Amino acid sequence: MSEPFTPIREIGEFGLIDRLQAILGEPTDPDLIMGIGDDAAVYRLPDQETVHVITSDALLEGVHFDRLITPLEYLGYKAIAVNVSDVAAMNAEPRYATITLGLPSKISVEMAEALYRGIRRACEKYGLVLVGGDTTAAHTLCISVTVVGEARIDEIVFRRGARPGDLLCVTGDLGAAYAGLKVLLEERKALKAEGLNYKPDLEPFRYVIQRQLLPEARLDVIRDWRQRGLRPRAMIDISDGLASEVHHLCRHSGCGALVHAAAIPVALETRDVADRFSEDVDTYALFGGEDYELLFALPPDQLERLDPLSFNVIGEFLPAEQGIQVQTPEGALIPLEPAGYQHFRSGGDGEADLLE
Amino acid sequence: MSEPFTPIREIGEFGLIDRLQAILGEPTDPDLIMGIGDDAAVYRLPDQETVHVITSDALLEGVHFDRLITPLEYLGYKAIAVNVSDVAAMNAEPRYATITLGLPSKISVEMAEALYRGIRRACEKYGLVLVGGDTTAAHTLCISVTVVGEARIDEIVFRRGARPGDLLCVTGDLGAAYAGLKVLLEERKALKAEGLNYKPDLEPFRYVIQRQLLPEARLDVIRDWRQRGLRPRAMIDISDGLASEVHHLCRHSGCGALVHAAAIPVALETRDVADRFSEDVDTYALFGGEDYELLFALPPDQLERLDPLSFNVIGEFLPAEQGIQVQTPEGALIPLEPAGYQHFRSGGDGEADLLE
Repeated sequence: MSEPFTPIREIGEFGLIDRLQAILGEPTDPDLIMGIGDDAAVYRLPDQETVHVITSDALLEGVHFDRLITPLEYLGYKAIAVNVSDVAAMNAEPRYATITLGLPSKISVEMAEALYRGIRRACEKYGLVLVGGDTTAAHTLCISVTVVGEARIDEIVFRRGARPGDLLCVTGDLGAAYAGLKVLLEERKALKAEGLNYKPDLEPFRYVIQRQLLPEARLDVIRDWRQRGLRPRAMIDISDGLASEVHHLCRHSGCGALVHAAAIPVALETRDVADRFSEDVDTYALFGGEDYELLFALPPDQLERLDPLSFNVIGEFLPAEQGIQVQTPEGALIPLEPAGYQHFRSGGDGEADLLE
Repeated sequence: MSEPFTPIREIGEFGLIDRLQAILGEPTDPDLIMGIGDDAAVYRLPDQETVHVITSDALLEGVHFDRLITPLEYLGYKAIAVNVSDVAAMNAEPRYATITLGLPSKISVEMAEALYRGIRRACEKYGLVLVGGDTTAAHTLCISVTVVGEARIDEIVFRRGARPGDLLCVTGDLGAAYAGLKVLLEERKALKAEGLNYKPDLEPFRYVIQRQLLPEARLDVIRDWRQRGLRPRAMIDISDGLASEVHHLCRHSGCGALVHAAAIPVALETRDVADRFSEDVDTYALFGGEDYELLFALPPDQLERLDPLSFNVIGEFLPAEQGIQVQTPEGALIPLEPAGYQHFRSGGDGEADLLE
């Protein structure tokens, strides 16, 4: 073959996105407020006061989930929730969803129904409607969801907008979804080794497993803020891990940041899992992905207007030249690497890992 | 396993969709004009005069295409075009697209760029903007596209709305995409047998191959109609084959229909391919899919307002009790079976065929 062959892993996911975006060029649509480059795209509606946001995310078997350890009802719920999370990160309300579903022959009608029960549950929980899609045969189970959300134009929050001096804040606790993944991967190993004789006791891990299999979009938080008349200056949802998302906020806002590792909220159950694997729980919290909490920038004078139970201050934005650093619990200042989350690693042919 | 396992092939794609829709229940969104059940969903925007339509369609390797005979630039174009076709079938203009792309490691950066060149070309051609999406690793190449379109609320055309006495009309010519598929599958066989020594002469098949690999959404037709102040009473795009789409229009409109096989427009190139394979070209025209022409219902008094070169009258709508029939070129009246298009059949493990 005479054509050059650059493996995608050589330039990484973000390098690839840059190259593909260069091919598309600059969009010229007069109503498009934000195209590629935030949690969701934003376009103005004809009344000029309302915008819609749109986002799409896929969950692929062997890449994002393993059927052996993923109940299909949970999977349906998660497919909606991860997209709603992107809508929440724009400070918008989800309205409509479409789904394309690739079903291999090993999926029965009853299994597809279980998947849809999860989808229905998520749609009811978050207040959106599944309005269409495409169902087709496939070699492996694949689910791609698009969600359209709505907001007043002045409510939208982008990744850009943080300023030096703003507080770096996060909802909920971090690292739990990754801890859940660790437990589930160990369970999978035991299941494969011992088969049906294996009697797992997952009760001690209920919280972290739920965070992995059944994540929640933090719509509750942005709805509370809206009632309080509050709007963060910049926001992103934590899908790839805190470190990676801090870098996104800083790059888009033209800021640096300091993260205090000791201030990152971590659940007791997450610590227990890290201990069990003799691993550092700070690594889970900084680099573990799929927590779907919200990371946001808040001017200090707005601090007292928030419900103090709903978030934690974990650092501050700084001038760009000060870089992006983390202060370890021991007090050392080290650069925060933008290492992203490693998606579920397939036991298959390994192809699935290359973009991660 | 104690749970019942009903293979999806037992109830078919439409049977499955019915069961899944039953789980979702009736949507209650006050702005939703059309949910699942047409070429695209339709929702009212806050100005109350404009609607958006939304549709999603996936193209999966080994199910909808074979990499060996599908240039990636064409594939990118087609992924957009098939979704724009659904938007056109609602009589709306495409505005925004999102894409989720699953890339196996055998796809290089340069190949992904070729795919995106096709996407850009389709976006330019049809006047929409790719605004976002998700790029991830995958075991096989998979592309899911969502397109949002726009129309004035009184412009929208549904599948319902045809009345007995309306003319059954179609744009372009039919069966060509299926003829193209036949030729390409034969080429694939030769390629596999003879390898790089194989020197194909595809020039005689240029038209039908292009119709298969590089289909066009008939936006040109609906734009022309809009200028003439014309609106069909019911419409659908022909993705699964004429017979199947006639059934959809009739079911949604509560009508029967009579199709005159001799009136179905078929290109000379399509006839040549059918002759080459000693097959009946009427079968191509009635049951071959992926032509992406528009099938629509027109009151007879509107006939003279259409550009006569842009469409053909191929039958008429009848009262429901008269059923759905086709008159063969020899004059016999036989029931028109709703047999759908068989998607590209994988040479793989056969899983991919089960939904079709």
